Amino acid sequence: MSAGGFGRANLPYGIFRRAGEAPRVGVRFGDGVLDLAALAADGLLDDPGGTFAQPALNAFMARGPEAWAATRDRLGRLVSGVDAEPELIALADVELLLPFAVADYVDFWSSIHHAANSGRIFRPGAEPLPPNWRHMPIGYHGRSATVVAGGTPVRRPRGQSRPDRDAPPVFGPSAKLDVELELGFVIGTPSTIGEPVPVDGAAAHVFGVVLLNDWSARDIQAFESQPLGPFLGKSFATSISPWVTPMAALAPFRAAPLAPQEPAPPEYLREEPWALDVALEIELNGETIARTNARQLYWSVAQQIAHLTVNGASLRTGDLLGSGTISGPERAERGSLLELSWNGAEPLALAAGGERTFLEDGDEVVLRGIAGDGDAAVALGDVRGRVLEA
Amino acid sequence: MSAGGFGRANLPYGIFRRAGEAPRVGVRFGDGVLDLAALAADGLLDDPGGTFAQPALNAFMARGPEAWAATRDRLGRLVSGVDAEPELIALADVELLLPFAVADYVDFWSSIHHAANSGRIFRPGAEPLPPNWRHMPIGYHGRSATVVAGGTPVRRPRGQSRPDRDAPPVFGPSAKLDVELELGFVIGTPSTIGEPVPVDGAAAHVFGVVLLNDWSARDIQAFESQPLGPFLGKSFATSISPWVTPMAALAPFRAAPLAPQEPAPPEYLREEPWALDVALEIELNGETIARTNARQLYWSVAQQIAHLTVNGASLRTGDLLGSGTISGPERAERGSLLELSWNGAEPLALAAGGERTFLEDGDEVVLRGIAGDGDAAVALGDVRGRVLEA
Repeated sequence: MSAGGFGRANLPYGIFRRAGEAPRVGVRFGDGVLDLAALAADGLLDDPGGTFAQPALNAFMARGPEAWAATRDRLGRLVSGVDAEPELIALADVELLLPFAVADYVDFWSSIHHAANSGRIFRPGAEPLPPNWRHMPIGYHGRSATVVAGGTPVRRPRGQSRPDRDAPPVFGPSAKLDVELELGFVIGTPSTIGEPVPVDGAAAHVFGVVLLNDWSARDIQAFESQPLGPFLGKSFATSISPWVTPMAALAPFRAAPLAPQEPAPPEYLREEPWALDVALEIELNGETIARTNARQLYWSVAQQIAHLTVNGASLRTGDLLGSGTISGPERAERGSLLELSWNGAEPLALAAGGERTFLEDGDEVVLRGIAGDGDAAVALGDVRGRVLEA
Repeated sequence: MSAGGFGRANLPYGIFRRAGEAPRVGVRFGDGVLDLAALAADGLLDDPGGTFAQPALNAFMARGPEAWAATRDRLGRLVSGVDAEPELIALADVELLLPFAVADYVDFWSSIHHAANSGRIFRPGAEPLPPNWRHMPIGYHGRSATVVAGGTPVRRPRGQSRPDRDAPPVFGPSAKLDVELELGFVIGTPSTIGEPVPVDGAAAHVFGVVLLNDWSARDIQAFESQPLGPFLGKSFATSISPWVTPMAALAPFRAAPLAPQEPAPPEYLREEPWALDVALEIELNGETIARTNARQLYWSVAQQIAHLTVNGASLRTGDLLGSGTISGPERAERGSLLELSWNGAEPLALAAGGERTFLEDGDEVVLRGIAGDGDAAVALGDVRGRVLEA
């Protein structure tokens, strides 16, 4: 996968800090960072309210699509050197922080191959997809407090599991620590409680996209999840890209989803089907162990938003919507070790020698994503995380 | 149930607004409100950082147990007229707002009779409690954005359900809108990610207690919940008391839980069992339809916190922990219409005539709670809500 993708076509937003200075909004360009607070102070960027001097993107995101478009247009001119030659701070000289304060975090389950693999693994012999799956984008709320920026190490969680179904549960470090390769959509503009967001207007609420690693402790999750769903098996950490790629940068990569929606969804979810053509991969200790594409998502983020709000629930600036693990039909396209090793039954042979069922202490995982190629390429920010012992 | 309970023994905190004025922190005393921002401005209350002039309790809660105790002590002296005669604003002249900004909202399932009733209703013939129930306080994350102050009307949600298992799902207004009678515990001081909170130190993080109505659309919930748990069936609204009763006010009402913990929970959940002796009731259109007690909770809030953080997840100021529906063993002690009407099979006869299975448009529900009696009584703030048509 190309090291590029951070040219003028991308211009993702993040929060950075130089030693001894306050965190503020930056935009990545190549291997450098534009200091938006400084550009605004110099009169080179319009910034009513001082949103670029904040330690989170929320205030800027809340300004809405017109402000996003005007800023992006202005930044495009700046990096082209049309009006001025903006100073770039070397990426190596900054610390990247969590880019926005997470309001509600919802994790969906929108890749049909991932959902079907889960069914085959946990309910062998039964219909792989649950009866609701093709009628609505199934999801659940996750823990906002533990969403962290890529680069943050992740400690193996402890918890209760029941490896032997005929014996009492045991407490200890998770023996089935996993990754999940997802996209995360970041809500920019809020909606009103009691007023569902129509599917046609839903994408306009989305500010941008990150990669998301929904770290999962499969053994803890398996014992706790009936009947109220995942809780401690997921809540210890969720890592996202420190860079938020604007939806505008990904607009050229809208494409048909790879799986048709059959049966047609109910009226409130009906739209021209679309996905994003973003190539994705999981790297484990430097070796690519899975390659897939975001076109494997069956439900679009617009449908997720229309569903989330159809009961009157509201969106807030800073809501994070995970796509769910993205898997394709082939083994090498599976977005989790649960699927890659078939819950441990088929260990994954590593090129470097040895094998993996689930993550070991010291393992480093990197999620990567890129749309297009050459100068038009748009990369999502890497999500890196090393596993620390419990 | 006594109309009292708001004397010196209680002194609950809330956020109030008089017409044309900014929202700020108030304390209820009888039928009046003490304006804490005014008291601080007059030098009668210590308030470093101006936390009482804020539109949410979070800044005050973050100051921690010493500040809570000092403020409570000072307020107790003030309302006794020892040092001065503080002005009270009539309750009728103020608007009560959501008392704090909700960080993460977790809803537990900690009443054994409620959990067992759910099992008997939805999995008849099977063991009523799932295998994990007696080993850990089961819970899931809910939607923070839609937590509202009591008094806010609640619109009947629309969504997908499948009333006929052999037919496709249908979309429309929920036909099984329900209430859930719960306590809500409000986290005052945060914990650190990666550092579990020991059960013995857990209660010290709790600032106070509210009543909580976890409105539920049973038909939507039933179709969506497998395998990831409740989502739109719960996320449209959660109502809490506008008054947060300090944990200190409830300390005299600690009592043994009514059900013993068998088997003994794992080490990280082990403590001297305790609950709060708070009498609770659900009123429907002025008629009491259920009476129960918070001693019916099997798991304590300290155990819930120890469990929530044992995997390294952190608490934040403003986290809200719902207890789960509180039910006793008798029919009249059930904390939801799901249980009171046995999922519609046994309609509840109303004294005013007619009957109910689930809520009808225009119904008004009030949750009430009180500990002790006479001058020593401590009431939780009522949670009132009227159902609006979809």
